[in-house]
Amino acid sequence: MHRHITGFSNPTVKHLRALRDKKHRKRFNQFLVEGLRLVEDARASGRLPRTLVMAEGRSHSLIERLEAEVAAAGGEVITTTPEILSKITGKDNPQAIAAVFDAWDTRLERLDRTAAPIWLVAQALRDPGNLGTMLRTCDAVGAGGLILIDDCADPFSTEAVRASMGALFTVGLAQARWEDFLAWLRSGNGQLVAASLREAVPYRGAPYQAPCFVLVGNESQGLPTAYEAACDLKVTIPMRGRADSLNAAVAGAVLAYEVLAALAP
Amino acid sequence: MHRHITGFSNPTVKHLRALRDKKHRKRFNQFLVEGLRLVEDARASGRLPRTLVMAEGRSHSLIERLEAEVAAAGGEVITTTPEILSKITGKDNPQAIAAVFDAWDTRLERLDRTAAPIWLVAQALRDPGNLGTMLRTCDAVGAGGLILIDDCADPFSTEAVRASMGALFTVGLAQARWEDFLAWLRSGNGQLVAASLREAVPYRGAPYQAPCFVLVGNESQGLPTAYEAACDLKVTIPMRGRADSLNAAVAGAVLAYEVLAALAP
Repeated sequence: MHRHITGFSNPTVKHLRALRDKKHRKRFNQFLVEGLRLVEDARASGRLPRTLVMAEGRSHSLIERLEAEVAAAGGEVITTTPEILSKITGKDNPQAIAAVFDAWDTRLERLDRTAAPIWLVAQALRDPGNLGTMLRTCDAVGAGGLILIDDCADPFSTEAVRASMGALFTVGLAQARWEDFLAWLRSGNGQLVAASLREAVPYRGAPYQAPCFVLVGNESQGLPTAYEAACDLKVTIPMRGRADSLNAAVAGAVLAYEVLAALAP
Repeated sequence: MHRHITGFSNPTVKHLRALRDKKHRKRFNQFLVEGLRLVEDARASGRLPRTLVMAEGRSHSLIERLEAEVAAAGGEVITTTPEILSKITGKDNPQAIAAVFDAWDTRLERLDRTAAPIWLVAQALRDPGNLGTMLRTCDAVGAGGLILIDDCADPFSTEAVRASMGALFTVGLAQARWEDFLAWLRSGNGQLVAASLREAVPYRGAPYQAPCFVLVGNESQGLPTAYEAACDLKVTIPMRGRADSLNAAVAGAVLAYEVLAALAP
């Protein structure tokens, strides 16, 4: 279906704009993606938007293909003014397109732990940029995906999607409480590894085993002691300076690349 | 000097608030730091604020010590309402204190390249969070500091300072155009290393040499080809997924930790 919208107070505009808000995303189980590149990444991984919104007058062969595919799949294609697209995205210079996708099931049970030698696990990760960066790192190291423990930033927020550079669409994603994660982990093979300053071995050359779950804690608090205690392996990343921690996404990546070298060189 | 400010239109409030703007920071060669922890980091590294701003009624032994030291050094201590502190920081729930520091000289000539085996170099880095994260990584790997090439985000922006977790105050910082950086680099010892997909060797076990300058390119464009060509060593970080790049701060950290293992194990 094709529609042209010119009114700021149009209910669809209000709905799309509200998708910047987490509650609204949860309620409708939808999220907003900005920019042709990310929408193309989604398409390449087999996901089409339910709604495609374009500024009028913008044309591009990729956009035309998208339009046709979205319409063929029963989705809606909306053209609107650049001003309304600005209002939807909250940006002064919005990308030429935005798209609404259905969010998907992020239960742990959907993950196949045997599918990859490495998994990233983040606990109480608050920054959506860090979250997206960890998804991107998952893609780079060939990890199965990212498991979000306890209250994390929303992986379907615009900032997380953008920072993931499309990896949201290609790597696994799960959300769980700690107890549920631990029960799931212990129901099969899996080594839980955390960076730690206590009773830890050097991260280089540590005895990593697949599937290896690399656990990273909250940006300011780090991991709760009880969570650390539940790990199979604690490793130390050298800290040669004044501080005792790295950015969470950086710590996850440094460990993940070490695990990659050990398990899938 | 102690002052109590209650008026929103007070010129000092306007000045402090304007420090969130890059032009204003440049003009006055000052920047704003939020939160006791960061201000304490600065103090510990020998830098006192020229102005300390506190919400009235907040008290803490560390704040009292800071107050006394700032006053003794000829600085100004301002108490104000939580509302005005909110206005200055632009946050609904501001930290209990904010502080104004003088920015410092970031010319390349101030760096002593022999002081550390590793240096990070970022070209056209646009995200202040990435910039701060790279400063934090410099601290962690014992790097001499971060050299910013061409037009980068402002290292004295609130977001960069916050992401650095205080490393802005403890590691070296320089800003230069590419030509000037290259001339400086070639005027002494120094190996320039970049992550690259072309004619590169694996990043693990590559022949790194101190002082090793790890060069990372712009978030979306990567490094210009001519810059890559000027490097002494090009290394590849494995990309096992769909994408061909990592977050810039992540790439810098993965390389920096590899160089650390090679040069200062």
